[in-house]
Amino acid sequence: MISKAQIKLITSLHQKKYRTKTGLFLAEGPKLISDLWEAGVELTAIYTTEHVNYPEDLVHTITALELKKISALKQANTQLAVFKMPNPTSMPSAGVVLALDAVRDPGNLGTIIRLCDWFGVAQLVCSADTVDAYNPKVIQATMGSIARVKVHYTDLSNFLQTWSGTVWGADMQGSSVYQVQWPQDVVLVMGNEANGLSPEVRTQLSDTLSIPSHKQVTGAESLNVAMATSILLNELRRPTGK
Amino acid sequence: MISKAQIKLITSLHQKKYRTKTGLFLAEGPKLISDLWEAGVELTAIYTTEHVNYPEDLVHTITALELKKISALKQANTQLAVFKMPNPTSMPSAGVVLALDAVRDPGNLGTIIRLCDWFGVAQLVCSADTVDAYNPKVIQATMGSIARVKVHYTDLSNFLQTWSGTVWGADMQGSSVYQVQWPQDVVLVMGNEANGLSPEVRTQLSDTLSIPSHKQVTGAESLNVAMATSILLNELRRPTGK
Repeated sequence: MISKAQIKLITSLHQKKYRTKTGLFLAEGPKLISDLWEAGVELTAIYTTEHVNYPEDLVHTITALELKKISALKQANTQLAVFKMPNPTSMPSAGVVLALDAVRDPGNLGTIIRLCDWFGVAQLVCSADTVDAYNPKVIQATMGSIARVKVHYTDLSNFLQTWSGTVWGADMQGSSVYQVQWPQDVVLVMGNEANGLSPEVRTQLSDTLSIPSHKQVTGAESLNVAMATSILLNELRRPTGK
Repeated sequence: MISKAQIKLITSLHQKKYRTKTGLFLAEGPKLISDLWEAGVELTAIYTTEHVNYPEDLVHTITALELKKISALKQANTQLAVFKMPNPTSMPSAGVVLALDAVRDPGNLGTIIRLCDWFGVAQLVCSADTVDAYNPKVIQATMGSIARVKVHYTDLSNFLQTWSGTVWGADMQGSSVYQVQWPQDVVLVMGNEANGLSPEVRTQLSDTLSIPSHKQVTGAESLNVAMATSILLNELRRPTGK
């Protein structure tokens, strides 16, 4: 059974405004929910069409039709959970940080969070106009990595100003990533899908990096931002000298 | 104006069966259409709501409502074109080849075709159960790269049997990609999104390769197939000794 008030709360969480207000977000599907739960994210309620092993007072057994009503997915799964957003942590001031300058596509952000998790980049700093990491589409695409990567939203060029290490931006006209030595403290900034890095962020860069293409003259014009991130993080983390 | 017969033909091309039968496929949006046109793909008709500079006998000016009716996209663009599939070319027998073993997601295939184009991998061999490269969602995701990368569908393990060079498969349990020397003639096989490489293909492999993760013990379990492809093709193409 699900009450009208519960339906209202859950569907409101499809929108960023209410996620921010309540500090809650949605995750759907048994695997994702158990990954978040095991990573220690605070579960406040689970709505399920099947038997589950979560604390009884959090479990609401509902019908497939009811689940469809509250789901943020095109195809509802068998479980939907409401989680509490982790408390904000302080901004990073050293180490390896990835930053996003107005990345708008939820699938790209979700994939990038998953890449950070894979490559052990614990801190992701996003410009205020980057898509919300607690957007249900992003959460689904992170595959649970949202529990392990700290995502910050801030005025990106202000943050870069306070950063004492190196700041590199990804740009088609940059130096070849194959030629650089990665510093210990570095922010790598990835730009918007259509427009690349913003002028405000560009003024804060120590240098720009590119991924050389092996295309013919008429080849692909660019790499998608998630692809470029995967290649650059691999370059950053791979052992040198090979 | 658009006739009922034209509507019927175009909407039939949303399905693989009719694309195979007619040898035609759809592309939508001014940029993609002009990219395919400039790459020399044969245009048979263009349906547009705006003025365009293609040969007059191919141009049909239609309304936005008519375009919406024939579009394969959720949000119709201003132009839809019907192109002829390029003639099949012979299977590769040397050089660098990427192979896909039952990759099912159209977005993944489109991204992988774009990566092949970027990294100068001219030949992509797909198992018969890999998603169709002329699926409208794939075509949109390739961003025109479909015009430059040769995509073959075949019995993949038969193809690998005839291949005289090395065959490597991507697998979580494989040797570190950072440790290998890439041979000159190599097929790199990427597996299905959920199940990885099939048993039939595994019997044909010289070795398996993995991308070492830098995650904590509880980190991301895997990389998406398009991410893994981007990292492996970068490893293949990057200059060694750095």
